[in-house]
Amino acid sequence: MAMKGKCIVAQSGGPTAVINASACGVIQEALKTPCITGVFGAHNGVLGVLTEDIFDVGREKPEQVELLKSSPSAALGSCRYKLKDLETSKADYERILDVFRAHDIRYFFYIGGNDSMDTAHKLSILAARESYELIVMGVPKTIDNDLAFTDHCPGYGSVAKYVSTIAMEAGRDTEALYTHDTATVMEVMGRNAGWIAASTGVAHRTAEDAPHLIYLPEIPFSVEKFVADCKKVYKELGRVFVVAGEGINDGQGNYVAEQKGPFAKDSFGHTQLGGVAETLKGIVQKEVGIKCRYIVMGTAQRNGIHFASKVDRDEAYLVGQKAVQLAADGTTGYMVTLERVSKEPYRCETGLAKLEDVANGEKMVPREFINEEGNGVTQGMKEYVVPLMQGEVKIKMGKDGLPDYTRFRRHNLSKKCTARA
Amino acid sequence: MAMKGKCIVAQSGGPTAVINASACGVIQEALKTPCITGVFGAHNGVLGVLTEDIFDVGREKPEQVELLKSSPSAALGSCRYKLKDLETSKADYERILDVFRAHDIRYFFYIGGNDSMDTAHKLSILAARESYELIVMGVPKTIDNDLAFTDHCPGYGSVAKYVSTIAMEAGRDTEALYTHDTATVMEVMGRNAGWIAASTGVAHRTAEDAPHLIYLPEIPFSVEKFVADCKKVYKELGRVFVVAGEGINDGQGNYVAEQKGPFAKDSFGHTQLGGVAETLKGIVQKEVGIKCRYIVMGTAQRNGIHFASKVDRDEAYLVGQKAVQLAADGTTGYMVTLERVSKEPYRCETGLAKLEDVANGEKMVPREFINEEGNGVTQGMKEYVVPLMQGEVKIKMGKDGLPDYTRFRRHNLSKKCTARA
Repeated sequence: MAMKGKCIVAQSGGPTAVINASACGVIQEALKTPCITGVFGAHNGVLGVLTEDIFDVGREKPEQVELLKSSPSAALGSCRYKLKDLETSKADYERILDVFRAHDIRYFFYIGGNDSMDTAHKLSILAARESYELIVMGVPKTIDNDLAFTDHCPGYGSVAKYVSTIAMEAGRDTEALYTHDTATVMEVMGRNAGWIAASTGVAHRTAEDAPHLIYLPEIPFSVEKFVADCKKVYKELGRVFVVAGEGINDGQGNYVAEQKGPFAKDSFGHTQLGGVAETLKGIVQKEVGIKCRYIVMGTAQRNGIHFASKVDRDEAYLVGQKAVQLAADGTTGYMVTLERVSKEPYRCETGLAKLEDVANGEKMVPREFINEEGNGVTQGMKEYVVPLMQGEVKIKMGKDGLPDYTRFRRHNLSKKCTARA
Repeated sequence: MAMKGKCIVAQSGGPTAVINASACGVIQEALKTPCITGVFGAHNGVLGVLTEDIFDVGREKPEQVELLKSSPSAALGSCRYKLKDLETSKADYERILDVFRAHDIRYFFYIGGNDSMDTAHKLSILAARESYELIVMGVPKTIDNDLAFTDHCPGYGSVAKYVSTIAMEAGRDTEALYTHDTATVMEVMGRNAGWIAASTGVAHRTAEDAPHLIYLPEIPFSVEKFVADCKKVYKELGRVFVVAGEGINDGQGNYVAEQKGPFAKDSFGHTQLGGVAETLKGIVQKEVGIKCRYIVMGTAQRNGIHFASKVDRDEAYLVGQKAVQLAADGTTGYMVTLERVSKEPYRCETGLAKLEDVANGEKMVPREFINEEGNGVTQGMKEYVVPLMQGEVKIKMGKDGLPDYTRFRRHNLSKKCTARA
């Protein structure tokens, strides 16, 4: 018989266009699952659990919950709060368990990337150690598409579709004004893995179509090669449009653009990147001798629900829904994965991967998806990503011509937790 | 009786999401106008006329012409080639007239901003002086919305809708991750006039909604005031989202971010701007002491047909179509304007303004559209722009999940022109 108790759903890490669809899948499924006696949200991921900032999702208006399917960013709030190993962050893990106990939380659904799966995994270890019955399920989310043990990650298909469209549109600008604005560099996200940059290869349908050159963190970046590449394209087309992942580096840990100062590192110890576009622009103007513009989409790229992929959005919902169904059946300690069971026609089913395996894995763009020269992608890469970019998401529009996105009212629970003796 | 002859249509200046819709209006109307005996395009605006790089639009596939309505950037090619006054640039103007004579061009439709209207105006003066019968009509286009004698400019409604949506979406990112990425600065286009920045005020539906602060070139920018504004919003909301026009300055000709070096000025003598977002980010991090991200949409913002305004697109078509109808009736030396004949419900009709008047005018955001503090907009500004942002443009989608945009084949005419004796 399924364990009775309440659940918490939380979102963590960088938002995506469809992480709310996953939350919607969890919430709508949990609300109709008999063994789940209450559906709560933690505000800002584990931070909300730690501070007992928990709200009753059951009290949100159903139409606002439904609107999650077409609302960007993380409606529950997100965080980048890093829990370390069980010994170092012992107080945090125990605090979480205490809060769970106080509110009779028996199900925890964590939507996030590998850092979040790591947190979820360690929490489930501690719960077992303290004999607190808790079901922990991970729901994958990352625009970076770098989670191991899953064919791809919800959030990726939408960012791929959006940045590829932007590259196509801005590419037409460079094409129209090449006598004046001859080059354009577009910087996209991807700290270690170049999946987002690689996806824009789909927009390069013909030699004329932007982007003409694509650089990924997986391939050591050489200024000399870059300049030669730009000169070659410029000679052929009279213009050049470049896409570069924010994490491009020389292969020896030196990033093309590394920010200095007090904000150089985030709380996971990752180097904060930026300025790749400006750096490359400077190189193009100086070394190639043509005027260059640049585009830094920043956080706008990962929230583009206004032009998201329906396949991605629907899969994001599915993994959330499935996590609840599996949890109700007693499954714990796993992340729901996506398995491509058919390439043509594309068909995906859900699978499972152990949280600890996902936590420690990282999936880079394989070498065979990158062209020999290391400045573009192969047909294999395009065939991988195209099915993930299909269809459009219908957006609710307001009277002012702009989208209506949901915002939760967050009816907070009264704080019940007392400090552990 | 209407003058018989061929026509040339050309596009100039920065592309927009809907400048092709105007070209479509001109082309489709010209093709069915009996007195117009041939419809040609000049590749890259007047540059194409000067180099006799002219192609037969009548030989493009009708479905590719129709696709102009949902294709971004300038499909005919654009330029920033500056023709000065009739004496200084005499050779250029005479060359244009010679090319027109050689191909029996009797109608010239120039789609562009005030620099283009200036060129068109001077050309019509020269034609009259040389007794060459020529009808010259201007078709307004600019995302900057700074043309005088028209209620608004085609291209503006679409960029307004798109950047406002981006501000809304990226604003939700800052809202979700405020504990980590507390501030975001988004830079938008607008060298002298802050119309684009001002439009994002529509996204600020409630105090919570981004953008919380908006800075326009019309209001002298003070770093002290900016820091105080950010601190105030941060205190109230725990986050801050800023939109800044690229041309913000201290009111005495000093721009917040001015590029140096050989690419500092374009051929019109305008200072090339960029780096506003990075500069403001630095100020926020240093003076407010919170982490700040930035977004530079660059040329992507003016080509966002994937989320353009249908009202804007339809009006862009209308002004092109109307220019041909008026030309066929003998009107010359005018630009088609848009007149808002009713506010509620919104209704626009076309009007006319003399090319020379438009050439010398520039319309800034009026003071009453900007709030007292100079860091946001008024209800009046919102009421002005909201009707221009209504409806979505249907895009033709390809099998790869990305849009299909038109690209002309450009069947060039044989060069007939011999140099003037």
